[in-house]
Amino acid sequence: MTNEFKIRRMSTTEAGFDSELADLLNRRMIEEQSLSETVASILADVRQNGDSAVVAYTQKFDRRNDVSSMAQLTVTQAQLQAALAALPEDLSHALHLAAERIRRYHEHQKQPSWQYEEEDGSVYGQHVVALERVGIYVPGGKANYPSSVLMNAIPAKVAGVEQVIMVVPTPYQGDDGGEGQLIFAAAAVAGVDQVYTLGGAQAVGALAFGTETVPRVDKIVGPGNVFVTAAKKQVFGEVGIDMVAGPSELTVVCDGHTDPDWIAMDLFSQAEHDEQAQSILISPNAAFLDQVAASIARLLPKMERRNIIATSLRDRGALILVENDQQALDVCNQIAPEHLELSVADPQQWLPGVKHAGAIFLGRHTPEALGDYCAGPCHVLPTSGTARFFSPLGVYDFQKRSSIIQCSPEGAAALAPVAETLATNERLQAHALSAAWRIPGREKL
Amino acid sequence: MTNEFKIRRMSTTEAGFDSELADLLNRRMIEEQSLSETVASILADVRQNGDSAVVAYTQKFDRRNDVSSMAQLTVTQAQLQAALAALPEDLSHALHLAAERIRRYHEHQKQPSWQYEEEDGSVYGQHVVALERVGIYVPGGKANYPSSVLMNAIPAKVAGVEQVIMVVPTPYQGDDGGEGQLIFAAAAVAGVDQVYTLGGAQAVGALAFGTETVPRVDKIVGPGNVFVTAAKKQVFGEVGIDMVAGPSELTVVCDGHTDPDWIAMDLFSQAEHDEQAQSILISPNAAFLDQVAASIARLLPKMERRNIIATSLRDRGALILVENDQQALDVCNQIAPEHLELSVADPQQWLPGVKHAGAIFLGRHTPEALGDYCAGPCHVLPTSGTARFFSPLGVYDFQKRSSIIQCSPEGAAALAPVAETLATNERLQAHALSAAWRIPGREKL
Repeated sequence: MTNEFKIRRMSTTEAGFDSELADLLNRRMIEEQSLSETVASILADVRQNGDSAVVAYTQKFDRRNDVSSMAQLTVTQAQLQAALAALPEDLSHALHLAAERIRRYHEHQKQPSWQYEEEDGSVYGQHVVALERVGIYVPGGKANYPSSVLMNAIPAKVAGVEQVIMVVPTPYQGDDGGEGQLIFAAAAVAGVDQVYTLGGAQAVGALAFGTETVPRVDKIVGPGNVFVTAAKKQVFGEVGIDMVAGPSELTVVCDGHTDPDWIAMDLFSQAEHDEQAQSILISPNAAFLDQVAASIARLLPKMERRNIIATSLRDRGALILVENDQQALDVCNQIAPEHLELSVADPQQWLPGVKHAGAIFLGRHTPEALGDYCAGPCHVLPTSGTARFFSPLGVYDFQKRSSIIQCSPEGAAALAPVAETLATNERLQAHALSAAWRIPGREKL
Repeated sequence: MTNEFKIRRMSTTEAGFDSELADLLNRRMIEEQSLSETVASILADVRQNGDSAVVAYTQKFDRRNDVSSMAQLTVTQAQLQAALAALPEDLSHALHLAAERIRRYHEHQKQPSWQYEEEDGSVYGQHVVALERVGIYVPGGKANYPSSVLMNAIPAKVAGVEQVIMVVPTPYQGDDGGEGQLIFAAAAVAGVDQVYTLGGAQAVGALAFGTETVPRVDKIVGPGNVFVTAAKKQVFGEVGIDMVAGPSELTVVCDGHTDPDWIAMDLFSQAEHDEQAQSILISPNAAFLDQVAASIARLLPKMERRNIIATSLRDRGALILVENDQQALDVCNQIAPEHLELSVADPQQWLPGVKHAGAIFLGRHTPEALGDYCAGPCHVLPTSGTARFFSPLGVYDFQKRSSIIQCSPEGAAALAPVAETLATNERLQAHALSAAWRIPGREKL
């Protein structure tokens, strides 16, 4: 690690830019056949053997030889509250403030039932209700984030979910009680109803199928490692899932008038997550890119996680020179980043041009880190280009809809001939008659 | 087939009712390992070899030995328009009327972007945009439903999707030109942008990965057979999908005051789809159940699809006696049916008690068949109990959201200490600094 650190430089004017960008993004999700088979066998075992399978896999994969029953993996409400009570004042204050802001933002997402009446008295609409019981997966291990507890659980509670069941893998007791306690405190603040210290495919299986101890849920949300992601995909359909997660990414667009140190640190904040994380800066200002490159080289050696940051930036980072603002937007939409920072003079005027992004951070004073913790919007976001079709985790993920159709006698009589015509053409006689018999005076068979 | 046909009778007062109901519903989705492997190899082949793989599988699985190139599987806009122009007047009228009603209903589902400003000038919200390109899968073969074209494509178009690509398996040319033509006419009415006569896992692969001919889409919607369902699950994450489909179901709740012949025909309309379809009637009125049983026995021999109906009703149908209205609701919520008919006196007062249903048909004049064709709401609905967490296909499936966070300098300065505290605790120094440097006067490293 020296001041000579060089980050990849790219320019849209160079021949081969498109293919170089495609290589940089290179996010084809390859799921190993063997991984998929391992996960399938874990899920089948949990489905068949319940608690005993879950305990066995926890002993094996989480190296918890101290565990012999589900009771040891069950955290009581008293334990959650005790963790909260024992928290230092500053942390407790920060958690509560973050929780309150997250709650307030998500209240705006709650969708009501709606109906409207037609002239003939028929009523149409949708009946919107909360899911009954959901599971939230909170990563443990290296990525031990109490903020993730708030970001997953609070939107569910705002939606009105009765029972929020949280799983988190923890080799905490003994070696790292402090962080485990903060996770538990966050669960208390968020109002989580039940916590199990489980992880991996076995935790997903327990939530999807239910065991003697773990209640079966309707939907499982929250990111995890490759085993968790594969398991969520496999149980999808038996339960709902939120999205399929990959490595985290940040794309910054800057007009060249933000402090280059700020931008360098923003790029670092993404890169420090893990070696697979991706940080990209786009600017039409070549001199500014030079300044940020210099900031990166100067600041990197001072960072605690410099090795992770350096690997991430070297393997997956880039500073991209574009010719103008429209080209910056085009490259952004090509990337479809999880996080998009618009560090420009009038960011709102850029919004209509943004087609694909998980979260958009507007202006020089909105670093991604604020969104990660406490701004309000959820930090569970679509990664790896899936912002083309996925949305941030939100209240809408915890609500579901039923169509409402209420035909008046007049409405039914008006629609029935149309249905009869189409059903007859589809050779569905019972459909045709079921509709037609609602027409007054129509003879039966 | 005789008048002696007997449908299963059940009562909540009998011992063992709960386990009998569980057996009746028996919807554990078992996906054969061999099916999953076959689908995986088809998808890998299509990903690798594009058009040539798609053509080869179409020859093999759709028995289209006449086909040797993708050009033969590509339907032009001129062909779609010609099919529409050639349609008999009554069918054309019915299709247009259904399309117009579906469009009007779905306009109510369109969700706008939203923002709000906090006191310190910070702005929060969501930026809502349509998906760019989606694929709709329309079943062919036995289930050849032009109404499904309208129900899949129109919500996408209302959302603002630029390119709607439809696939439909067709051994039409030669043996059944008429029905194929109606599918094409429906595509013209719905404004579908491109049609390929493809089906099965190979069609899903073509849409998910793109080929030389078929453009890659962002999301694939619409129900298909077990191969299609397995393929959609496997490509999920590379593209979005709507839901995981199973056999179709209807649960009718009746207070005993609807014409029993109407109810019998409603049950038939579900059962005639296929042998796996499920029709259930719930009533607190035992005499009424007798009347419906008699109607079933009398009407069944007169039905064109009596063999399919009889098998479906015998294997999966039931008339269930309950003690009161609340118990009827409890059984309904246990079933979580795709279609729920509330054939009762004041159906709106039942709504708050309905927790899980794909679509709710209220009142005696709202047979499910009207919803299948032309009432307005989408007939692509969650099946097999997945109404616990899935919603009807809708405009929201074709829109996606990006979070908006725009901190004013004051807002950033207020939030940064909170983010710094939490990030420091999580040992993410770059996150902490990225936030803290936005505080005026804060020293850098």
